[in-house]
Amino acid sequence: MAISYKDSGVNIDEGNRAVELIKRVLSKYKSSEQIGKFGGMYKIPSGYKNPYLISSSDGVGTKLKIAIMAGIYNTVGQDLVNHCVDDILAMGAKPLYFLDYFATGKLKAEIVASVVEGFAKACEENDCVLLGGETAEMPGFYADNDFDIAGFITGIVEEKKVLDGSKIKEGDLLIGFKSTGLHTNGYSLARKIFFERLKLKVEDAFSDTGKTVGEVLLAIHKSYFNEIYPYLKKDKIKALSHITGGGFYENIPRILPDNFDVKIKVNWEIPILFDFLVKESGITKREAFRTFNMGIGMIAFVDKKDSSVFKELSDKKEAFLIGEVIKGSGKVLIDGID
Amino acid sequence: MAISYKDSGVNIDEGNRAVELIKRVLSKYKSSEQIGKFGGMYKIPSGYKNPYLISSSDGVGTKLKIAIMAGIYNTVGQDLVNHCVDDILAMGAKPLYFLDYFATGKLKAEIVASVVEGFAKACEENDCVLLGGETAEMPGFYADNDFDIAGFITGIVEEKKVLDGSKIKEGDLLIGFKSTGLHTNGYSLARKIFFERLKLKVEDAFSDTGKTVGEVLLAIHKSYFNEIYPYLKKDKIKALSHITGGGFYENIPRILPDNFDVKIKVNWEIPILFDFLVKESGITKREAFRTFNMGIGMIAFVDKKDSSVFKELSDKKEAFLIGEVIKGSGKVLIDGID
Repeated sequence: MAISYKDSGVNIDEGNRAVELIKRVLSKYKSSEQIGKFGGMYKIPSGYKNPYLISSSDGVGTKLKIAIMAGIYNTVGQDLVNHCVDDILAMGAKPLYFLDYFATGKLKAEIVASVVEGFAKACEENDCVLLGGETAEMPGFYADNDFDIAGFITGIVEEKKVLDGSKIKEGDLLIGFKSTGLHTNGYSLARKIFFERLKLKVEDAFSDTGKTVGEVLLAIHKSYFNEIYPYLKKDKIKALSHITGGGFYENIPRILPDNFDVKIKVNWEIPILFDFLVKESGITKREAFRTFNMGIGMIAFVDKKDSSVFKELSDKKEAFLIGEVIKGSGKVLIDGID
Repeated sequence: MAISYKDSGVNIDEGNRAVELIKRVLSKYKSSEQIGKFGGMYKIPSGYKNPYLISSSDGVGTKLKIAIMAGIYNTVGQDLVNHCVDDILAMGAKPLYFLDYFATGKLKAEIVASVVEGFAKACEENDCVLLGGETAEMPGFYADNDFDIAGFITGIVEEKKVLDGSKIKEGDLLIGFKSTGLHTNGYSLARKIFFERLKLKVEDAFSDTGKTVGEVLLAIHKSYFNEIYPYLKKDKIKALSHITGGGFYENIPRILPDNFDVKIKVNWEIPILFDFLVKESGITKREAFRTFNMGIGMIAFVDKKDSSVFKELSDKKEAFLIGEVIKGSGKVLIDGID
């Protein structure tokens, strides 16, 4: 008996069908993947004096499990692109292009095409190009319906516009930008509570929000690019912290100089999802701010004299004045906790 | 009972231990990852007139399973970097930097550090920088000892030096460069034969090679950068095809213009591993050349008048004259098969 490549669990024909479906999906979007080449090409933009590339790789963690449970595949692609965009935005960069990695145990063309549609949509929204990707069928590695995705972004920034925290000074204000939900962090804990402890289903109603558990947990990681990049161009922001895994306590110190602390006052309304998770898990407030974004997905450090420029976002309750920089030793001090 | 993040299967402390181990590993290599920032920074090199970035994302497929079976973790990192380097080399680019994604069900600091050491070693060998990476612990997604890795590379090439196949002409010669083994393709089939059908173990001897099955199957994907890039700089190569998944039949057409065929003569010695796999699987010769690299990992298209420049590599049996370009319709014709 001959063992063909297909017998071994790898199905080249289904791979080709996926390529056809992906081509059809991509034709709907401006940013289009260069299928079939060994690598994607991108012309370096002119007009920069000392340009730096800023790159980041990311995943979406076990948020994927919820997407798989709910059979909704297009939003995780957007989560991944937006997460990547926010990471390089935090260093001052504008995204140029994105590449993906998609791995599964058994390739299903419709699923991979739906995920890629999410990539394409988010790339278009963030004014960057979906430059390429790798689709891997790895029999025996993932359960049949499971898959994993990773993303890689490249952006550009002028040398003197790089945000590295060095411009932060005593008295600077912290502006917190609203998150849409858990973004891409804290899902292992959230899954334990929702699905193991409370035995809820993705289609169950969540509290009195009018939304299902699946909808609340799959809310797309927000990209702050369109909201924040205009302020970067006008030099109105001195530093940014993207609140991802490790929450406030681990992400703020990534850019805070050693000789300052930040003093944070929780004067925004913590979304019901976070209150619920804290209550049901029994974790401390401190652990909550080390695990979740608690309703704030990005924090901007702003000179006191510039704080009024955020008035419009503040009036719309999209951004809040949440703290200030004081003399110290690199610590995050949250009112009522520290 | 409180459910902490650690109870949920995510262990931040082990993550921090991994970071410390990785820092120690990286200190041994020139190229060092920028740990702790939101993204990695890379200054765009000067001296290019119309530079293009070339990027690619890749995985190593189920070769990982063999690494995991053998408990050898440092070579797959090199496989991944070299695979990425070869992909963008095929477009004429020189690598600048690499980023990784590492995902596992249960983080083990020693394993991730060993994999990262492979990344760092290969980056140094390919004169590029390990710029950053994402390490994800995803409980319930991977079996406890399993992990997956993805790599992202960015390279640079002057516009008029981009290799896209358009310079290929009738009469050009094909120079095949020796592979070290399966590289990163055909492992699902190879695993079926070695471990399921023949019930061999990674520590068993393979034929009379003096090597074990594990050693033969884990041979590192060769990077052709140091061997081939000097010829690219001197414009001695018109096109390159990286022989990966899909073998000769799918990779050569990626760069072959529609109005030519290539005629290939198998006048190199096919390594015993491929003969063994073909014999034991019972697949046809055609399917073999569509699945495996059959001993040739990269094919260069060279003007007839320049063929002598490869004499040195040819004398060392590192490269072989394996075919030529004829008028046709984009087909790959292998002597004795087509």
